[in-house]
Amino acid sequence: MPEMNTQIVLASRPQGWVKESDFRIQQAPLPAASGGQVLLKTLYLSLDPYMRGRMNEVASYAANVQIGEVMVGETISEVVESSNPGFQPGDTVSARAGWQSYALSDGTGLRKVDTRRVPATAHLGAVGMPGVTAWYGLLKIGGPKEGETVVVSAASGAVGGVVGQIAKLKGCRVVGVAGGAAKCDYVVKELGFDACIDHRAEGLVKALAAATPKGIDVYFENVGGAVLDAVLARCNPFARIPVCGMIADYNATDRYGVKNLISAVGNRLKFQGFIVSDHMGIWPEALGQLAQWVGEGKIKYRETVVPGLENAPNAFVGLFKGENFGKLVVKVHG
Amino acid sequence: MPEMNTQIVLASRPQGWVKESDFRIQQAPLPAASGGQVLLKTLYLSLDPYMRGRMNEVASYAANVQIGEVMVGETISEVVESSNPGFQPGDTVSARAGWQSYALSDGTGLRKVDTRRVPATAHLGAVGMPGVTAWYGLLKIGGPKEGETVVVSAASGAVGGVVGQIAKLKGCRVVGVAGGAAKCDYVVKELGFDACIDHRAEGLVKALAAATPKGIDVYFENVGGAVLDAVLARCNPFARIPVCGMIADYNATDRYGVKNLISAVGNRLKFQGFIVSDHMGIWPEALGQLAQWVGEGKIKYRETVVPGLENAPNAFVGLFKGENFGKLVVKVHG
Repeated sequence: MPEMNTQIVLASRPQGWVKESDFRIQQAPLPAASGGQVLLKTLYLSLDPYMRGRMNEVASYAANVQIGEVMVGETISEVVESSNPGFQPGDTVSARAGWQSYALSDGTGLRKVDTRRVPATAHLGAVGMPGVTAWYGLLKIGGPKEGETVVVSAASGAVGGVVGQIAKLKGCRVVGVAGGAAKCDYVVKELGFDACIDHRAEGLVKALAAATPKGIDVYFENVGGAVLDAVLARCNPFARIPVCGMIADYNATDRYGVKNLISAVGNRLKFQGFIVSDHMGIWPEALGQLAQWVGEGKIKYRETVVPGLENAPNAFVGLFKGENFGKLVVKVHG
Repeated sequence: MPEMNTQIVLASRPQGWVKESDFRIQQAPLPAASGGQVLLKTLYLSLDPYMRGRMNEVASYAANVQIGEVMVGETISEVVESSNPGFQPGDTVSARAGWQSYALSDGTGLRKVDTRRVPATAHLGAVGMPGVTAWYGLLKIGGPKEGETVVVSAASGAVGGVVGQIAKLKGCRVVGVAGGAAKCDYVVKELGFDACIDHRAEGLVKALAAATPKGIDVYFENVGGAVLDAVLARCNPFARIPVCGMIADYNATDRYGVKNLISAVGNRLKFQGFIVSDHMGIWPEALGQLAQWVGEGKIKYRETVVPGLENAPNAFVGLFKGENFGKLVVKVHG
């Protein structure tokens, strides 16, 4: 039996919460590299909240995935065949090979990664797209100054954890918001945040006030909903809110209504959405700095590694329920 | 009987909708100018939505008015006595003399105005704080480009009318949102907007979609609430939302919950509050340009002039119900 390419395709567009049955697993013949192509074997697949948006009928900013198409996604892959002089079999690359065990590429967008300096999976997390997202949003939109208070939601996640640690390196007071005591403990004890608020516990508004005695200068927005409302009520004049995501809304059929936007007027708030792929120019600088910080132990991270591509749909569904802890990756090949 | 100074003071902090009984009228002795002071006689008092915020216990960005204090406000005043070499009796100045018929000033913040070139009341409107607010928010935060679609709420108001006319001068498609058919007619026929939507009529979302076939690139926010939600759903990638005010929320005890903020992520929206008094450096340029446009008839405006300071509270209450048409001013003397 020749080896096949295992693929996970979009079976149906989710209505509200994404379900495992919105995906379908299929086998396809293994392609061969020709005419400048390389054949990539997927080592690790990254699972990220933005992928939920690609499953919708109306895509937000990038092309949506069509029914029957392989789901999109970042991977760490190994070059196993190459007809492209830029790549040799055995090279490890960062790619966008999607939810499949093999993929062809013409080399566009492939980036060789050094897995001796930084582990392979970190190139999908703290030294990959999530890390650059944290770096760009915090530093280029948030612009935190020493002594300011920075709040970040989804604080134990792939992006949030890096945001908070960079903010600490910049001399800020850093307060996380996360789901559950275990994640909050980790954020404070392992990542070194000054405080972390459990949004699942009672008294979010009061807890946030207690943790931010000088108000909030930067809020790195990953979740939306009630957390955003609580933050808006604590914002200082000229606060900045880089908007990376609003995961609370991604699966909602009736979204939370935000009531404290009026704070934007009196406090001259800046609330700004961004997508890191719009800013490819900053990637080399950001990745270099992140790799250094990770190498020096100044940025720590945690991962949930799910074994087996066939488990990706289940893990992805759990991502929106906070079942993962830190960066969620799927180990596809060994 | 010597002439007295009629003053309108804050009698109580409004709970929800502001009422006439939240104000009290009182008589005080007429002060005399000494030691560099000037005595100002109020010709016109400007009534503006931001004053509602100053009546609250917690002021948003400027000191709130204390119970028993004279309400704050911009005026066009005549110098009637002067011990300040910079001002002569007979000078007409723009001042912040508040809701009273006379006021003392040490000259700080007074600006002589030429009422031959532009009528006195226009210095409280299109060539005053509201005009500069429109100019700054639209041009410096909104950054409209030729051919883009600009939407402005409270389109027949002192700020909104100027926003839309500047946007037309910049070559944009301009759509207003206003309350009632008469205001919408005025916005299109007199001010030259391409379309205007009556937010009091049924079908706001559908009407906005029809009026913005290419989506929305700039939304100048004056009202908040359901209009903001409808606009968010029509925003193009990289749309800019200068946030001048949210009048729908100023008197609300239970504010509208905005549900479409998720658009900020995919569309990389910038939603930014501002207060024009933070940007005094741009006033001379803005006022010069606005005076020229008004002089040339390129910017038109309408006013509701209420006679008598004693009628200011009633007129102010009506401002939040849309009872005025265009800039609301009170004729105090003259």
